[in-house]
Order: sequence, then C-alpha cells, then structure tokens
Amino acid sequence: MNIKAPRGTVDVLPKEAQKWQYVESKIKGICDKFHFEEIRTPLFEHTEVFSRGVGDSTDIVQKEMYTFEDRGGRSLTLRPEGTAAVTRAFVQNKLYGEPNQPVKLFYFMQMFRYERPQQGRMRQLNQFGVEVLGSADPAVDAEVIDLAMTVYKQLGLSSLKLVINSLGDKESRANYRKALIEHFTPYQEELCKDCQSRLQQNPMRVLDCKTDRDHPSMKTAPSILDYLNDESRIYFEQVKNYLELMNIQYEVDPNLVRGLDYYNHTAFEIMSEAEGFGAITTLAGGGRYNGLVEQLGGPNTPGIGFGMGIERLLMALEAESISIPVADELDCFLVSVGEETKQEAVRIVHDLRLNGIQIDKDYQDRKMKAQFKAADRYKAKYVLVLGEDELQNQVINLKEMATGEQIEVPLEKLVDTMKDKLLGGE
Amino acid sequence: MNIKAPRGTVDVLPKEAQKWQYVESKIKGICDKFHFEEIRTPLFEHTEVFSRGVGDSTDIVQKEMYTFEDRGGRSLTLRPEGTAAVTRAFVQNKLYGEPNQPVKLFYFMQMFRYERPQQGRMRQLNQFGVEVLGSADPAVDAEVIDLAMTVYKQLGLSSLKLVINSLGDKESRANYRKALIEHFTPYQEELCKDCQSRLQQNPMRVLDCKTDRDHPSMKTAPSILDYLNDESRIYFEQVKNYLELMNIQYEVDPNLVRGLDYYNHTAFEIMSEAEGFGAITTLAGGGRYNGLVEQLGGPNTPGIGFGMGIERLLMALEAESISIPVADELDCFLVSVGEETKQEAVRIVHDLRLNGIQIDKDYQDRKMKAQFKAADRYKAKYVLVLGEDELQNQVINLKEMATGEQIEVPLEKLVDTMKDKLLGGE
Repeated sequence: MNIKAPRGTVDVLPKEAQKWQYVESKIKGICDKFHFEEIRTPLFEHTEVFSRGVGDSTDIVQKEMYTFEDRGGRSLTLRPEGTAAVTRAFVQNKLYGEPNQPVKLFYFMQMFRYERPQQGRMRQLNQFGVEVLGSADPAVDAEVIDLAMTVYKQLGLSSLKLVINSLGDKESRANYRKALIEHFTPYQEELCKDCQSRLQQNPMRVLDCKTDRDHPSMKTAPSILDYLNDESRIYFEQVKNYLELMNIQYEVDPNLVRGLDYYNHTAFEIMSEAEGFGAITTLAGGGRYNGLVEQLGGPNTPGIGFGMGIERLLMALEAESISIPVADELDCFLVSVGEETKQEAVRIVHDLRLNGIQIDKDYQDRKMKAQFKAADRYKAKYVLVLGEDELQNQVINLKEMATGEQIEVPLEKLVDTMKDKLLGGE
Repeated sequence: MNIKAPRGTVDVLPKEAQKWQYVESKIKGICDKFHFEEIRTPLFEHTEVFSRGVGDSTDIVQKEMYTFEDRGGRSLTLRPEGTAAVTRAFVQNKLYGEPNQPVKLFYFMQMFRYERPQQGRMRQLNQFGVEVLGSADPAVDAEVIDLAMTVYKQLGLSSLKLVINSLGDKESRANYRKALIEHFTPYQEELCKDCQSRLQQNPMRVLDCKTDRDHPSMKTAPSILDYLNDESRIYFEQVKNYLELMNIQYEVDPNLVRGLDYYNHTAFEIMSEAEGFGAITTLAGGGRYNGLVEQLGGPNTPGIGFGMGIERLLMALEAESISIPVADELDCFLVSVGEETKQEAVRIVHDLRLNGIQIDKDYQDRKMKAQFKAADRYKAKYVLVLGEDELQNQVINLKEMATGEQIEVPLEKLVDTMKDKLLGGE
C-alpha cells in the first residue's frame, strides 16, 4: 500500500515552500504600492458561476472542470480560474456600492483544470491575479499590465515578451464575427470537429485552435484590428500610448484571442523568452471583461484583470538562473548531555523562543557527538552546550560556530546574552 | 439570476483579509522561532488517504467528506483534515530518510467538511497546523503544545483552557477497549444507532457521542487513565512535567478522546473561555499518532501534531476585544486636473511606485473636488496636485494632509522628495 498524490498535483516541500513564500511576499509588497487589496473566495463555486461566467463553449467549461455534486445535490465546481469567482463575490457582497471605486483586488488562488499533466501544466495550479472592477479608463488597463510586468521585473526576470491585442467592443466583435464566418465557411469541412461547431457559436475561438493552427486559411484570416469601430480603436490607442509613457515594450498580435468568452477590448499575454524555458511560454494572461458583472447578476460594471501562474513564474526564474534567497541557517542549537539536563534543556529552549530567539534541540536521544553533527547540518550560528557540570553550576557553554569562540554564560543571563548577539540587543 | 457562494462558505473581503494576513504572518514568525518549516499538499487526495488515515468508522469519513470521481474515474476527496494528507506526503517524498529528524512541518490549509453550517463551523474552514514526524520524545509533545499556546498568547488571548489526556499505547487501549465494551454492553439498546455499531468497532468513540452524552452510563464509564500500562503512564507523566516546567497550565480530562482514529498517547484541546465566544469553544486540537505513517505505507515512525482553526482564532480575538492592526492609510494620492495632465499623471504614478512609494489616482474621470474627497476617504497622507499650469512649469503641488502644509516640487525632484518623506530617505 503506497498512496501517491493525485495525478497532476504535487507536494511543495519545505525548501521549495521557502521560494513560494519569498515570491508571494514580494508580490504582496508590489500590490500594496499599487493600492490593490486582497480577496479570498471559496475553493468551489456553484457550477453556474463558471458556465455562465467563463462561457459554456470554452474548453475549460466543456472539458476541464472538476464538477461534482455535494451531499445536498448541489452541482459544485472547483475553481478553474479566478475572474468569474471574484466577480461573483463582487456582486454578492455588493462591492459596486462601495464609495471607493474602482475596486482593486488581488488574490492568490489554487485553480483546478483536468488536463493532461506536463511541465508547467498541472491539474492543481496556483495563480496570483488581480481584478479591477468599476472603471473603463484605459489608464487602468495600462496599470494592470504595469503591475504584472513590475512583478516579473522586480523578481529579476528580463527575457519577457508582452503581447497585446484589442478584441473591441460588442459592435466591433459582431462585425468581426461575421467576417470570420464568411472567411472560414468555405474551408469548414477541412477544419477539426471542434472548429466546425465553434464556427457558428464562437468563431474567434477558431483562431485559437491547436489542431488547425497550420491550416492555410489561418494565415489569410481577417484581423480584428481592421474591424474595430472608432471608439474601440481610440481606446486601444490610449492603452498603447500609456504603455509607451511607462516605457513598457509590447508587440501587437491580432491573433491573440484568449480562451475565455468574457474578454473584450484589451487582451494581453506575457511570455518568457528565456532559453530552455519549455514549450508552454505563457507566464500570465488577462484582459478586459466589461459585461461580466452584469452576466453574473450585478449592475453594468467594467472590469479588467489577469492571472499569473506561480509554478511558471518559478520555472522562469530558474530558466534565467535567478536564485531566490532561502534561509538555510539556524540561530541556535542546544546540545544537552546526560539524563538530568533534559528538563532544563526544554525550559531553556522554551524561554529563548518566547524571547524571539530561533532555537532547536535534539529529540532523538542522540549522543553529544551526534547532536553536534545535527547542529552542523542545521548550520547553527550558535551552539549551547548543557552538561551535568554546567547544570550544577547554573551556567551554559555558548559556542559561536563561525569563530569557534566559546564562553560560559550564567543561565540567568542567557536570554539577554542571546538577544544581544542575535537581535542586536532589542 | 443571482449566484451566491455555496452554503457553508464565505468570501474574505479586503478589510477582513488584512486580519488574516496579520494572523498568518505572526504565526509564521512563531513557527520560525520553533524551527518548523512549511509544507503544502494538494487540495484533494485519493479518498483512501482519509479512509485509511482518519479511519473508516469516523464521522468525518462516514458523513462529512466531499468525495467525487474525477474525469478519469479516480475517487478523490477534498482534504477534511491535515494530518493524513501531510503524512501521505511524508511517506511519498521519503522524508523519513532525511538526515534531519524529526521532521517539523507546519501548514496553512483549507479543509472541507460537509456539516450543518453554524457560527464557527463552516464547510470550508481554514487551519493552521503542525506535524512532527520521527520522534517519540515526550518533550516533542510538550513543544507542540507550547507552540499552539504561544500562538494564542502572542496574539493576545488570555481566556484559554488547555485540556490534555493520554489515550495510551496499543496495549493500554486494547485493555481499555475491553473495559468499555463490558461497561456499555448492558445499556447497548438505550444508546443511539451510531453508538450501537461503534461499541464493537471503536468503543472509545461512544464517549464522544453528542446524542448519548447525557446517558447515565457515560458518567460511570471507566477512565482510560486507569488502564494505562507503565510505559504509557510514565510517558504521560513526562509530558505533564515538561508542561509544568514551561509554566503551561493544563487540566487532565480522561474523557477527551478526539474524533479521529489515529490518536494514541497524548491528546489535547485548547478552548476559549472568553464570554460570548459561542457554543463551540474548541480552538485547536491534536495529539500523537504513532502508527499512522506505517498505515499509509511508510516505515514505523512516531508522529504528533495539531490543527487550529483560523476562523475560530479570529472569533476568539474578537470575543476578547483584541484589535488587529489594520493598515487603513494610503501614502499618496494624485489629483490631476484637465485633460492634458492625464498622461503625465500615469507616468508619475508609475514612477513613484517603481521607487517604492504607495500611490493611487483617480480612474473615474472625477472633478477636482471629488478627487480630493477620494483622497480623504483613502486617508492619504500626501496629496499631489497636477494642474495644467503645474504641468507647463514642470512642477507639482505637494500637500501634507496632517499639517495642511503645501509645497511646490519640480517634477524631476518628485521621486527623491517622496522617498525622503515616506521612506526616510532610503
């Protein structure tokens, strides 16, 4: 009997967890500068949130969701993405009625997608993301992109590519839709089954198809940018202009569609261009989703956001050989010798921790030599040695490992001595 | 159409999320002093992990799990508790082979239990917990209890009750089991259905039954403490002795059984005694589970841990009127007046954030007066005003809100000025 973690999921063990902590804490700091606040939503939602929010015809909803009935017969779905969930929370908690608008939210969430696991694509994945609800100012689109790029840059990444596009407003999309149907209909029979049904339902997603991407009709397909109406075109120009003002390099890719139904106007992706990063280069993706709040039962409210994979971020850092500072030292290790010292050892460790000192001791009944070896493995800066003689004299031996220097400290002065040495006399 | 979060789950909105961040960060700091490291496991496990780990006859496994089949026909279960999941990870990743023993882990995890929701009992709950695997030293039991108590005390709680018990080793339990069956069999027909079947399977859990707790046979039931063999008794004495050395108050309650099958030797619970805390007073619970690692396919390894509800911790803080420091100020707000200033405003905000200054601006096309009101609502410490005149002269107006003092700053000096004022000239 040997049970493994479910396929497509992994354990994050302590050394790795330190990297996650580092990255999360950096990101939270940046969100604070940008004046975004955290939201946490439940891990599962009523399935309707995603079928309505993400779109019934999307791959996510059709093929990739973990959907199940709870014991009360409700259809629930493990969150496959953050935007629909956060938007549901925005509506339910009436955040549109708050005096401070727009509402600028960030989140760290696990997402669940039933896909074939491969490097950079797990069934349980972790995302950092933001959503700004309540403003249709193109400066917000630029701010959101700026935030994502700032995260990557401040973590040290440099091989990045930002790709943007505009999917236009309703009118622009309707015109483009028509043009796409006209364009692809003659080739309909040559396209894959999925695309044949997509062509009427949601022709933009044909452009996104992995099966048909080499079909000659793809290259000659009309570009959304030729179908933007004036308002959409000006909006897109403003977003690009703001990015330029902030010195953020970008490329426009009219084929960037994104797999979800709710996007309009600005869509963007950030890719890693680091060598050896792997086949899936997308690090983050997002866009504007005016209309989604209404679709989930709220008032007409514009919105924009992105999701950023933490696993891929860590892969990108590795691909660019950026090392994350990981604490691998221990302040103090207590070596105790002899049966009589055990109780005092527990008391000392307790006392030092209470006073803010990081300390550990042996719990394996090891001999002195083996306890010293453990202290070495933990890279202890100081080793305290308590033998029966020391106990009798109410002192303890303090050894600084870097210098080899040893002093004897009265037990009653130990806390103060260690605070002086480790906390700068706080 | 108005979709709500699923029953028994809640959204944590920004003001509340700040409290969570505070509590989590405090707890992480304490774990660091105690030399515990973080582990993260997947949100779901093969159902077997819990049916074998937690125990087939427990309420959790029989009634409360979110179990479903994935698209590949695997039976998966949303984690109802942390110990079995962490132990599975310990076995799978062969952490028993690491040179540093015991392995001291902490986690923050969401748990899922299908129960009737009430105050302090949600279907999605959040726990902080620790597991120490690889040592059977009673000093570890005391350390783990010390850690839990330190968390509560350092967060400011004082109305706490620690209750401990020993469930003994295998032999002690076998003897006690016999005594319990003998004791309850005459009353068998008067007990609830569940207890009737528990009586043979797992008679200790009869003591835990909520339905039968007032049955007269409960009061006269034999005490586990009378059935501990010498080894178990000495072990328990040592744990108590260590707690006393650390000045940790406790009560012994021989009826403390805990609802999970895997416990032996030390079991403990920490309750809030704050007035108005509510009906469910347990804040944390844990115990020793020697044998669980073997049961999940690993080598014979002792273990001990606890789980602590974050929701209940926050409730306890509130019941004791302990306020959590929540940041509700903003460093800087930029007011821009006139169409021409918009672009420069975006550039300035970007630039200041890059330099570590927290700043926000208007994205609602508000008039100047409404922008100042927004700055007030955000409790901005500084307001920057950029009008068309200022832009032309390449200056900006800087107002310190606390004093009302205003100065004009050349745009090229703005970053340095703000750093001086806010970051102490870093």
